[in-house]
Amino acid sequence: MRSTIMSRRDLDFLLFEWLAVDELTKRPRFAEHSRETFSDVLDLCEELATRYFAPHNKKGDQNEPSFDGTTVTVIPEVKQALDAFAAADLIGMGMDQSLGGAQLPTTVAHAGFVWFSAANISTSGYLMLTVANANLLAKFGSAEQISMFVKPMLAGRFTGTMALSEPQAGSSLADIVTRAEPQDDGTYRLFGSKMWISGAEHEMSENIVHLVLAKILGGPPGTKGISLFAVPKFLVDADGSVGRRNDVAISGLNHKMGQRGITNTVLNFNGAVGHLVGEPHRGIVYMFHMMNQARLGVGMGAVSLGYTGYLKSLQYALERPQGRPITSKDPTTPQVPIVEHADVKRMLLAQKSYVEGALALALYCARLVDWQDSADSENERDSAALLLDILTPIAKSWPSQWCLEANSLAIQVLGGYGYTREYDVEQHYRDNRLNPIHEGTHGIQSLDLLGRKVTQRNGASLSALGAAIAQSITAAGKAGGEAVDLAAALDASWQRLVGVTMSMFASGDVEAAMANSAIYLEAFGHIVIAWMWLEQFVATDGLTGDFYDGKRRAARYFFRYELPRTAPQLQLLESLDRTTLEMLPGWF
Amino acid sequence: MRSTIMSRRDLDFLLFEWLAVDELTKRPRFAEHSRETFSDVLDLCEELATRYFAPHNKKGDQNEPSFDGTTVTVIPEVKQALDAFAAADLIGMGMDQSLGGAQLPTTVAHAGFVWFSAANISTSGYLMLTVANANLLAKFGSAEQISMFVKPMLAGRFTGTMALSEPQAGSSLADIVTRAEPQDDGTYRLFGSKMWISGAEHEMSENIVHLVLAKILGGPPGTKGISLFAVPKFLVDADGSVGRRNDVAISGLNHKMGQRGITNTVLNFNGAVGHLVGEPHRGIVYMFHMMNQARLGVGMGAVSLGYTGYLKSLQYALERPQGRPITSKDPTTPQVPIVEHADVKRMLLAQKSYVEGALALALYCARLVDWQDSADSENERDSAALLLDILTPIAKSWPSQWCLEANSLAIQVLGGYGYTREYDVEQHYRDNRLNPIHEGTHGIQSLDLLGRKVTQRNGASLSALGAAIAQSITAAGKAGGEAVDLAAALDASWQRLVGVTMSMFASGDVEAAMANSAIYLEAFGHIVIAWMWLEQFVATDGLTGDFYDGKRRAARYFFRYELPRTAPQLQLLESLDRTTLEMLPGWF
Repeated sequence: MRSTIMSRRDLDFLLFEWLAVDELTKRPRFAEHSRETFSDVLDLCEELATRYFAPHNKKGDQNEPSFDGTTVTVIPEVKQALDAFAAADLIGMGMDQSLGGAQLPTTVAHAGFVWFSAANISTSGYLMLTVANANLLAKFGSAEQISMFVKPMLAGRFTGTMALSEPQAGSSLADIVTRAEPQDDGTYRLFGSKMWISGAEHEMSENIVHLVLAKILGGPPGTKGISLFAVPKFLVDADGSVGRRNDVAISGLNHKMGQRGITNTVLNFNGAVGHLVGEPHRGIVYMFHMMNQARLGVGMGAVSLGYTGYLKSLQYALERPQGRPITSKDPTTPQVPIVEHADVKRMLLAQKSYVEGALALALYCARLVDWQDSADSENERDSAALLLDILTPIAKSWPSQWCLEANSLAIQVLGGYGYTREYDVEQHYRDNRLNPIHEGTHGIQSLDLLGRKVTQRNGASLSALGAAIAQSITAAGKAGGEAVDLAAALDASWQRLVGVTMSMFASGDVEAAMANSAIYLEAFGHIVIAWMWLEQFVATDGLTGDFYDGKRRAARYFFRYELPRTAPQLQLLESLDRTTLEMLPGWF
Repeated sequence: MRSTIMSRRDLDFLLFEWLAVDELTKRPRFAEHSRETFSDVLDLCEELATRYFAPHNKKGDQNEPSFDGTTVTVIPEVKQALDAFAAADLIGMGMDQSLGGAQLPTTVAHAGFVWFSAANISTSGYLMLTVANANLLAKFGSAEQISMFVKPMLAGRFTGTMALSEPQAGSSLADIVTRAEPQDDGTYRLFGSKMWISGAEHEMSENIVHLVLAKILGGPPGTKGISLFAVPKFLVDADGSVGRRNDVAISGLNHKMGQRGITNTVLNFNGAVGHLVGEPHRGIVYMFHMMNQARLGVGMGAVSLGYTGYLKSLQYALERPQGRPITSKDPTTPQVPIVEHADVKRMLLAQKSYVEGALALALYCARLVDWQDSADSENERDSAALLLDILTPIAKSWPSQWCLEANSLAIQVLGGYGYTREYDVEQHYRDNRLNPIHEGTHGIQSLDLLGRKVTQRNGASLSALGAAIAQSITAAGKAGGEAVDLAAALDASWQRLVGVTMSMFASGDVEAAMANSAIYLEAFGHIVIAWMWLEQFVATDGLTGDFYDGKRRAARYFFRYELPRTAPQLQLLESLDRTTLEMLPGWF
């Protein structure tokens, strides 16, 4: 029976038949790996996710962490899962061998991690944060910080968090007020409160390393005066042993609609000892290194939830008899499985096009990380970075919107059953609703895309994306047949998007241009996913069999049912409509 | 301070300034009423909803009904609320005075009920079902049944349910297998199981009257062999006193994602005594009388949840400081309330356009019920019935889709806070997700619209709707100014919809035409709501002030941001696309 957590067949297609990830082993960094080691990692991830993560997904939702004023209690299955992941040496999947990592390509590490987030987004959240934290410290921290924090994280002894937001400053980092006071011994004392800290407090690791943004007195105002600190829950002695409790504490837990299995709370710093990471006032730069990874991670998490919901609704639709074909309604004939009904097929095909399209983008972006980090030439690394820059807000926001929609369709396929907690899909829907909010809301992503990424370096990112799309269109031309039609549609949409972008900036009316940035993000995202579908369509060229037929049909679906949504959006954008901008608060 | 349950100002606008409901008092049926009595009812509903329904909305969600094997326990506030509603004589709001009702217009009764569903959709659900049940029995039941069941329901002593679905037959009523065996005393014995029965079991009323669809042996197959029975939880003696327990029982409760405050479960009939309502084999006809009301009720419930979420996110946006205008980012200046940001305005304006547009449609349909029941001429009554027929699937499905989207936007406005259970909006979102499922799923509504309503009586319903829209366009022409532009856009969309509809049927390819029925439903819905916005726009003609400016701006928003979504949908429909139809199950 096929797994309903994730599709290994699709991962293999994307990694090996499309992205040719095995060619990365030609690079020195990955020379010790092979397609076999990549496959072994995917096998291992599937096995651990199936055995340790999926079974307590519902239990974790129904028994969220509790706080008695002193201690946070989490169901024991979570620690067992975290320990199993660490014992398999997966925390350092993508990290340098010199640090004890497996030095796998990011593409493979992300593909492996999908199994865990699909099986249990909450439990895997502790791991995602720990990995991101360790990556940041490995890159920007001192040798002492690496030995003090990174190595115990890789060993599974410590976990990590990221602490940016504050109760009065969620999306507006410029307004954080947590302050750091320098001490004679080179450390700092931190005072303030951080909000929405996932994994902030629990008893499952020996220590928790918080990466905290704070202001050192005398620094410039706004985000330029922000520094980054590593603040452990327990102080770590020179010999690496865990000492006394630091002055960082929680006062309670947040209770969320979904992702209930992972703690989330306000973290109060009352003179906590913090270690400055890198240089003063450079905190935002360092944090954005982690944040960009976290944004790809959020997108990947959204894909995972969408994907597992799709597989579960597909299984239900194949098994559930109900109703008859529209052309033979005789009630004395047997009922058919609901997958036979056109509208159910539509709901499944929509899900398939969303989750497989989004997974393709997520892995494409992961491969860009690999190119950015390890391509042979400076030019290739720079091109990858440019492309990754402009695709990151899409890779974060598009799955958050459309794989959530996939979860809604999964509920709809199950009907009343899907609305009950006896089935899994309602939880996926609740869990997924967080993704358009955290690590930069939908609105923030849209400002990042239109206000920064599209114009950066004189439009170099936009040009890089245009060149990549043009390559795909050329490849489609060689494939011929339906690929040519899809390529023509993509080309037209892309040219139109570029033209509208130019006209928006040419207008000089920045306020009006930015007022509809969320619409821009959505149109841009749909065009990018259409590109991912053209890529997949072409990758099936000449191949026969159900799997490839399904890919081609999902591509067709996306081009006929989804891509056309962008036409009225682009028209609206071009008009620089001021309807929302000029709405007065008193009119609501 | 303005209520965040519902907007009385908007209700007054819709009822009195737009629909001129007070003119109904010229009809004999409503002659004893006046604008004052209507206003008094709205005052009363607001007061009771605020005092008895809203305060336990969250508590009911967090403490869902429990079943110990014998008794279902519901938090006591629910019964207090039901009793307060009954004590105010509101159960019979719309019913005949001869039965003890207040004989209010349906429009006013529905407008009043919005307060209760917005304040607490679960608790009000018990009432909605009781009212619908009493209405059906009053219309089709015998004098004995009216005295046995309807009068105690109106007095608040009994509650009611509707029992259609079965575990193996949700959307396919033709396949129900519950059977009814005639007895010598004229009653029947019922055997079988019914699924998804809301309000099925509790201790809050002296008795529960289940209206149950079942098959009498020897009847025709399919829906034509279904009869309707009143099956009380406790038998009622000739003198009206409540006697022994009937053989109807539950085995447990369903646990839902939302609407947790109302019981929902399988109901097992093990030889339960049932009273045949009306004639044998006519059950579907009677039930659809109730079902059509219930569909309007579901749509109204979806509107209520969308509306209250909108008001709460608006209040938050007016009070929460965060960030600065895009043109003055100086971090040393004070932050502004988030309502000042264009993207937040967009999310609020979208919500406003969805919930006020949907409320307008809901009340327009309620007024059609009044015209259908009490217009002076046969011709007027028939026109109203035709229009109501074609609008019912829209009035059910559109709010279920878009007021749910409004709830999602409300969460987004609140950001991380909106995702926590400390605020209300996440519950509204969970509660509202049921509405595209129950009382006929989205897919079922689309089949009803395209497969039945559009073509019925040679397209008479479609023509009636076209005539009504043409009237609005004429009125807009008289108003002049922007109304003329909106009218032209609506006219173009409507003509296009009619043309596409004709071409779909002209093709003779029924399978392909019906395959995209859900898309048809959505495009049709958006055009109908655009019409509702044109109507509201014209109703503000010549009026000044914030409220009217807000109405006109929301209308403009809907025409510029929403109506254009229909263009690619109509193009797809016209193409009779077979992408989904020809998808093979093995390809998924």
